[in-house]
Amino acid sequence: MKSDLDRLMSERNLDGLWVTGPGLHNPAMSYFTGLAHLTRADLVKPRGQEPVLYYYPMERDNAIATGLRTKNINDYDPLRLLREARGNRARAMAARLKLSFEDLGLRGRVGVYGTVDAALPLAVAKELHSHMPEVTLVGEGEDTLLIAARATKDEAEIERIRQVGRATTAVVARTAEYLTTRRVRGDTLLREDGQGLTVRDVKARISAWCSEFGLEDSEGVIFAIGRDGGVPHSSGKPDDLIRTGQPIVFDFFPQESGGGYFYDITRTWCLDHAPQEVEELYRHVQAAYQLALDSFTPGMLCRFAQRRVCEYFEAQGHPTLLSNTTTEVGYVHPLGHGVGLNLHESPVFSDVEQNNDRLEPGMVFTLEPGLYYPERGMGVRLEDTLVIGRDARIEVLAEYPMDLVLPMRKAARAGTSRARPATRPSAKPARTSKRATGRAKPRRR
Amino acid sequence: MKSDLDRLMSERNLDGLWVTGPGLHNPAMSYFTGLAHLTRADLVKPRGQEPVLYYYPMERDNAIATGLRTKNINDYDPLRLLREARGNRARAMAARLKLSFEDLGLRGRVGVYGTVDAALPLAVAKELHSHMPEVTLVGEGEDTLLIAARATKDEAEIERIRQVGRATTAVVARTAEYLTTRRVRGDTLLREDGQGLTVRDVKARISAWCSEFGLEDSEGVIFAIGRDGGVPHSSGKPDDLIRTGQPIVFDFFPQESGGGYFYDITRTWCLDHAPQEVEELYRHVQAAYQLALDSFTPGMLCRFAQRRVCEYFEAQGHPTLLSNTTTEVGYVHPLGHGVGLNLHESPVFSDVEQNNDRLEPGMVFTLEPGLYYPERGMGVRLEDTLVIGRDARIEVLAEYPMDLVLPMRKAARAGTSRARPATRPSAKPARTSKRATGRAKPRRR
Repeated sequence: MKSDLDRLMSERNLDGLWVTGPGLHNPAMSYFTGLAHLTRADLVKPRGQEPVLYYYPMERDNAIATGLRTKNINDYDPLRLLREARGNRARAMAARLKLSFEDLGLRGRVGVYGTVDAALPLAVAKELHSHMPEVTLVGEGEDTLLIAARATKDEAEIERIRQVGRATTAVVARTAEYLTTRRVRGDTLLREDGQGLTVRDVKARISAWCSEFGLEDSEGVIFAIGRDGGVPHSSGKPDDLIRTGQPIVFDFFPQESGGGYFYDITRTWCLDHAPQEVEELYRHVQAAYQLALDSFTPGMLCRFAQRRVCEYFEAQGHPTLLSNTTTEVGYVHPLGHGVGLNLHESPVFSDVEQNNDRLEPGMVFTLEPGLYYPERGMGVRLEDTLVIGRDARIEVLAEYPMDLVLPMRKAARAGTSRARPATRPSAKPARTSKRATGRAKPRRR
Repeated sequence: MKSDLDRLMSERNLDGLWVTGPGLHNPAMSYFTGLAHLTRADLVKPRGQEPVLYYYPMERDNAIATGLRTKNINDYDPLRLLREARGNRARAMAARLKLSFEDLGLRGRVGVYGTVDAALPLAVAKELHSHMPEVTLVGEGEDTLLIAARATKDEAEIERIRQVGRATTAVVARTAEYLTTRRVRGDTLLREDGQGLTVRDVKARISAWCSEFGLEDSEGVIFAIGRDGGVPHSSGKPDDLIRTGQPIVFDFFPQESGGGYFYDITRTWCLDHAPQEVEELYRHVQAAYQLALDSFTPGMLCRFAQRRVCEYFEAQGHPTLLSNTTTEVGYVHPLGHGVGLNLHESPVFSDVEQNNDRLEPGMVFTLEPGLYYPERGMGVRLEDTLVIGRDARIEVLAEYPMDLVLPMRKAARAGTSRARPATRPSAKPARTSKRATGRAKPRRR
């Protein structure tokens, strides 16, 4: 949490933080500024002091609205600095940083953060080194202090993610409603104009619904049918037709418009009816979900949960990463990941001994077991976003039914080319148990 | 253009390029991969060779769909590398890069690019230096080789930006249509439910229309009324009511969904009628637009166009950056900027002697003069995105009328609280000339 920053700076021997880049789609900056329309800004936080936001005057209103201490970059006459740097912008930026650091009395080790082109920090670090040898810009790699601070969320952040989850599941519900009310010709769903409904059509609607709910699908949407659903990150072929009886992996991970908090949910759906082998995969995935959910305890190593799910899947005869670290069938990815201003953040669930991430109160993370058999034309994944509360309760932040089979509304059926009984023998929906819907529940002890 | 890459690498003494980060919202990566859903990938291009895309196997379909040479990251056993690096992910990444570079016979100076957290490249550069001293990772700052290559667009890129422009102006037209068909109470536009229409309402609709047209407003939307329009990058107060007779600066700069090419357009609108002092500002801005458009010639220094517009505005009595580099009233920003996979890229138009950017065939850039008087409650900006063709023709990529006044449809008027004549004396629309609408035209010589 933000209140951990000074402690983490001490632990990591950092005297200051420099965050750079835009105000939107920049988690490190948004963590301090909120979703502020800043084309470009700098934020400097000396240890033990409040951060200062440096803004360009055209964006002063947006800067001031952040509520942070602010300073106009023009006060440093950046055009003069650029002239003195003979047009070398990295050098001019280093010169301006030097003035800021001096104003704040900052020297020593300064961590560097912010979503920018990689070419910039390398160049500025080199220039600053000659301008101000008493400061060292430190790149912390991926496991930065900000990632560590952001791994636990405060109440306001959890509430925001819960709101994103509500909007997200509203879009999922609308998608299900849309699909199940389509007319069907043969086994193909139809658009309003009578043409076959495609993955592209569905994604366009999902995007529009996102906007309506204040979300953006900035990382895309996975809506993958059959074989594609068997390749975990295949996002689905745009021209694929939506058909009944085929497994659809719908992995939906929008964020607040402008680059804010994410939510992440996956459902696997079969419209009208499900093939028996998909139902079997589904049961294994659902059991793994429940097994993992029941195992989560504050303080546990995340990799133990991954290990447990691998062992369960292997007992059911599926290959997993446990016995083959490069398998591309069976269970091929970690059990979950932290969710926040990044879609993927701490904690991580990889089962490698170097992964010492543990579940802690305030963490928000996904639970997403899956099984993948592209050559058999199928994949199944089920995913929710959970929080561990201060009281150690595990809670799904936004509940949504887990049913595999979505029955088509009978009145919508228009198919004539292939006769089919209204209910097929294999159309038994695999019902999820009440617990498997991820209802908030007290921890068993 | 892409065909310039090897030449630019020679000029800059670079033996290779390393591009890292996701496939979406990452201009340096998208430039090679297109809009590929890759959570994380690396691309390495030795000079004189085709680039190789390194992908994680979960995303192999998306990687292969790019048409690039590809290699599965798992072939390097990244889990083993992470173990050997004792969990230090930057070190493991450096070890993997070393293997890639050795496979490709790459050594020497390697430029680093890609939208990632600044902490990563600094850490990897440090680690790689000890793993592979025969390679130096080079940060080129902001004026990178890729920015230089991307400053001129090939025909396929220009056509894509033109398509984005068509979608963008379609959303602008829909916005105008929506506003002018609202009912009005007093001078306030009304929503369907009879409540006052706010900036928030309008932006929500714009976002939804974006999705419909395959766009995303990833950098936000400026819809700024009155005083806010006088602060160039104020994005508008969400709760502000839309009223007739007030200047609205609508600056709209969406990109292809997923982080592709941008388009950028600004119109200043007064609904129903315009105050006389806004009309006067508008005439000055429109004249500056035309003056600049007429001055553009391939080979000209961009800063000369900025200088000329400053001189014109000063002759009309407006402060500009020419006589006061920190003015916040009058004309306070550069005349334009390159547009491509970044909203702001080369060329730049700042009037500083270090700016040697020149207009060249294939460049796509904005022309956007504006005048700002927040204390007088107004700002005016007019902007289009232009291209210089191979034949030296200057063309607005997507034309849209420039009218200041948007007449309200008479039938929509529901106001009773303030009597007003159907046509006010000040309601003369300031018509744009045919040339001022930016119609494609042959260069005068």
